[in-house]
Amino acid sequence: MSKTILLGHGSGGRMTHQLIQEIFVKYFNNETLSEQTDAAILENPNKKIAFTTDSYVVDPLFFPGGNIGKLAVCGTVNDLAVSGAQALYLSCGFIIEEGFLFDDLETIVKSMAEEAFKAGVKIVTGDTKVVNKSKCDKIFINTSGIGIVDNNHTHIASGNKISIGDKIIINGSIGDHGIAIMGSRENLKYETNIESDCASLNHLINKIIKQCEIHFMRDATRGGIASVVCEITQKHKIGIALDESRIPIKESVRGLCEVFGFDPLYVANEGKFVIIAPKKDANKILELLQADELGKDAAIIGEITENHLGKVILNTSIGGKRMVDMLAGEQLPRIC
Amino acid sequence: MSKTILLGHGSGGRMTHQLIQEIFVKYFNNETLSEQTDAAILENPNKKIAFTTDSYVVDPLFFPGGNIGKLAVCGTVNDLAVSGAQALYLSCGFIIEEGFLFDDLETIVKSMAEEAFKAGVKIVTGDTKVVNKSKCDKIFINTSGIGIVDNNHTHIASGNKISIGDKIIINGSIGDHGIAIMGSRENLKYETNIESDCASLNHLINKIIKQCEIHFMRDATRGGIASVVCEITQKHKIGIALDESRIPIKESVRGLCEVFGFDPLYVANEGKFVIIAPKKDANKILELLQADELGKDAAIIGEITENHLGKVILNTSIGGKRMVDMLAGEQLPRIC
Repeated sequence: MSKTILLGHGSGGRMTHQLIQEIFVKYFNNETLSEQTDAAILENPNKKIAFTTDSYVVDPLFFPGGNIGKLAVCGTVNDLAVSGAQALYLSCGFIIEEGFLFDDLETIVKSMAEEAFKAGVKIVTGDTKVVNKSKCDKIFINTSGIGIVDNNHTHIASGNKISIGDKIIINGSIGDHGIAIMGSRENLKYETNIESDCASLNHLINKIIKQCEIHFMRDATRGGIASVVCEITQKHKIGIALDESRIPIKESVRGLCEVFGFDPLYVANEGKFVIIAPKKDANKILELLQADELGKDAAIIGEITENHLGKVILNTSIGGKRMVDMLAGEQLPRIC
Repeated sequence: MSKTILLGHGSGGRMTHQLIQEIFVKYFNNETLSEQTDAAILENPNKKIAFTTDSYVVDPLFFPGGNIGKLAVCGTVNDLAVSGAQALYLSCGFIIEEGFLFDDLETIVKSMAEEAFKAGVKIVTGDTKVVNKSKCDKIFINTSGIGIVDNNHTHIASGNKISIGDKIIINGSIGDHGIAIMGSRENLKYETNIESDCASLNHLINKIIKQCEIHFMRDATRGGIASVVCEITQKHKIGIALDESRIPIKESVRGLCEVFGFDPLYVANEGKFVIIAPKKDANKILELLQADELGKDAAIIGEITENHLGKVILNTSIGGKRMVDMLAGEQLPRIC
């Protein structure tokens, strides 16, 4: 096979078939995908269905802790998981620039297959488009996902059960993904070695959902944890108080945020999620999180309050108060 | 709101929310989407599920007979329909170039909403990414789709019931989409006015499935009808004989194919599908097709044969025979 992607690989003809066989079917190996029909036909699990989509345009494609393929699987799996769903199936749509290296495509696809296996999901349908040189930036990947939701978990996505006094919990340190991307983009040689936290959280989340009462969950990706909490206060007309000193952050990440002029509350994560749960369950959730590699630095970082409705207030580590507002523009383009 | 898309519209922050409210929620108006959760939560219809994805990168975005938005809805709806599924839900993922005109985005989104309404599907979840100027070509759209399949229709996608003697039927003239795109791309001033056949075929297809026995269906998009029949012969080790004189094609399309040097069998359609059905049902199918605006030029164009297994032979209109092979490279990049 040629060493680079050619326009013919997007033609729907022989070269497309060859690409599908030699790369996609090879790595995503499962019966449904091998059928190569227009749509995958899936067994119906007799539960409510969760459906999500995300396009990934991260730059650079390869970064410490992951690549665009791993990210595309984790991100969509996590979107399903935080909705209270068990992630089952993924689609993948590739838009590839003519001239893209086959070896890089193979590395990306292999990562997707490995991450899908880890997360216990199947990639069952896909599509490939190739555009002329300079008409897209190397490769963009869309993954859409299907999961199933128990009837008694459907409120997790909507957050309709969020109540005054609920605790806000995060599963670990913030800002790792954004700073890892920023660092590799700027080709900075850090003394410290910051890796993206990019990970599929579904197994951990499913464990917690089974054992604890959860009122809301959201993965804190683009826009960081600030965007998650701001969205909640505005949607549900409640107040949120965060304790800055309790929010886990690596010293190296904090330092680079200062260098770049970023507020870490707004920096993207790809392996962090915010839980809102009744006070009675908060410690149990914390224990479950801390027992897992993906939650070992978990912390209770704030609570739902009836004060300052519709607003998020940060109690700063030096004893002040600061309002946290939704990000107006773009802090870091193409972070995911 | 600003007149062009800015990087901030892809930030996940306030500008993203504004874009979602003022464009996407406005036009795709439905309760599930309005929840704006990470994943849409859908009722389970207790049937098998069909799942499909396609990215659309068509150039130009606006062409006679449609635009990238209409195409993104029709294409995915049709992929579900030809799989024997009833299309229900779509996701949409936008990748937009910084500086893209808001007015153009609105026109595209409005077309998507109109076509979704016509097809009877709901756009229930979405995602927007914005990339820097020159890092993508204006706008790319991914639509993934979910449909439901009756157990006794699941063979339609696989084609496992295709038998010797089955008839091959098409619902109308070939090549319209490809030539319409080609013409508007080259900015040719045709005497004739060729429009894309871009249309949602699901209502017509569902009607036929209910009343007739169908062994296989496929929409003849990228790679044209040649790619569909070649794929079948190779997958099922059968022979196919096509009658050139029976294949409907507009005189204007045939003429421009000659000018461009294209074989119309390979030119893309976006409103045409190939049916393979037992001989006993062929005339009934033809009647049903011809009674519908989207099938009025339908014709029986060939049959499954035990001769030349694995190959497609075209009986030409001048009395010769020609082998039809899978397209090796790319005839028309970015046709969909």
